Amino acid sequence: MPRPLILASGSAIRLQLLTAAGVDAIARPARVDEEAIRQALVAEGAGPRDIADVLAETKARKIAEKEPEALVLGCDQVLEFRKEVFAKPETPDQARDQLRALRGQTHRLLSAVVLYDGAQPIWRHVGTVRLTMRDFSDAYLDAYLARNWPAISASVGGYLLEAEGSRLFSAIEGDYFTTLGLPLLPLLGYLGTRGFIDA
Amino acid sequence: MPRPLILASGSAIRLQLLTAAGVDAIARPARVDEEAIRQALVAEGAGPRDIADVLAETKARKIAEKEPEALVLGCDQVLEFRKEVFAKPETPDQARDQLRALRGQTHRLLSAVVLYDGAQPIWRHVGTVRLTMRDFSDAYLDAYLARNWPAISASVGGYLLEAEGSRLFSAIEGDYFTTLGLPLLPLLGYLGTRGFIDA
Repeated sequence: MPRPLILASGSAIRLQLLTAAGVDAIARPARVDEEAIRQALVAEGAGPRDIADVLAETKARKIAEKEPEALVLGCDQVLEFRKEVFAKPETPDQARDQLRALRGQTHRLLSAVVLYDGAQPIWRHVGTVRLTMRDFSDAYLDAYLARNWPAISASVGGYLLEAEGSRLFSAIEGDYFTTLGLPLLPLLGYLGTRGFIDA
Repeated sequence: MPRPLILASGSAIRLQLLTAAGVDAIARPARVDEEAIRQALVAEGAGPRDIADVLAETKARKIAEKEPEALVLGCDQVLEFRKEVFAKPETPDQARDQLRALRGQTHRLLSAVVLYDGAQPIWRHVGTVRLTMRDFSDAYLDAYLARNWPAISASVGGYLLEAEGSRLFSAIEGDYFTTLGLPLLPLLGYLGTRGFIDA
């Protein structure tokens, strides 16, 4: 790869996935007010898929404007339930409300990536994971929140699948990488097709 | 959970998945000649699903005989391609042959678990992941083997998905946990139903 990929995200797991795949990547997180953008898009009637895509693009563009020669990747993951997007819970009560709404139901995680080259978007993709929560008890939920707050406040939906969040689910349909927030296989496919990495 | 779960496997990632889910687990790897058992089962005409299940059961039973009061989990993962099971490659040439056979094709990983309680099998499950390799070049394959041998000799199929193995694939259908070799969600579901963990 002639130039490193700049990851416009502070997500340690995304950088780790790219580096493990042998992609020369560096992190340069974009500072954007995600919640304000999300709320403005919702007010305009944007759907969950568009919200994830616009947030990913906004992050990529912000870094691409500072690094116009660079290959820049913006990423975002949103939780969709019944056409609505869930924000990260700010209090244990909000997390409880979200988890009660999702209990026994199926929701989706949408993982969007937008790639910039020469300060222009050249490729975009949204990967999907479908997750079904089991019908856990209120007692379990209270104990879960007591054990896992505030760690889960960093996560949409109030769970971390790689921690005790797995206990909330009965089924997950979607690949390993997209679940972790990066649709890695379509991205690697595109990078290979364009000669940015060996194929 | 009244008793810790004994994991009859030396797999660090399986222990990590259980511990992260809040399951009180300890590792006690069973020493079994997996390759001899696999070959004997193949000679008897056993299919891939049966082979994974028997290997998981053999490991669980071996530890359960020493710990008859314990809850013991045996695990195995096999790679199935066109009804055949692939063994771990012993040389770079074997890995090259396997990867050439899988190139451009879809294969399956079968992740079996068998749970023993009181030295008797009480529950079993086989989870499936479908993986499709892209049509990578011979030049890429040679460079991949040079970079990743001998690490990939520990893996069925000659790839580690959490490392550069991701570059070999175009699509993966199957959940995060089953891909890593442990069908965690059905296991947690069973443990909860039986009261071994909170639900």
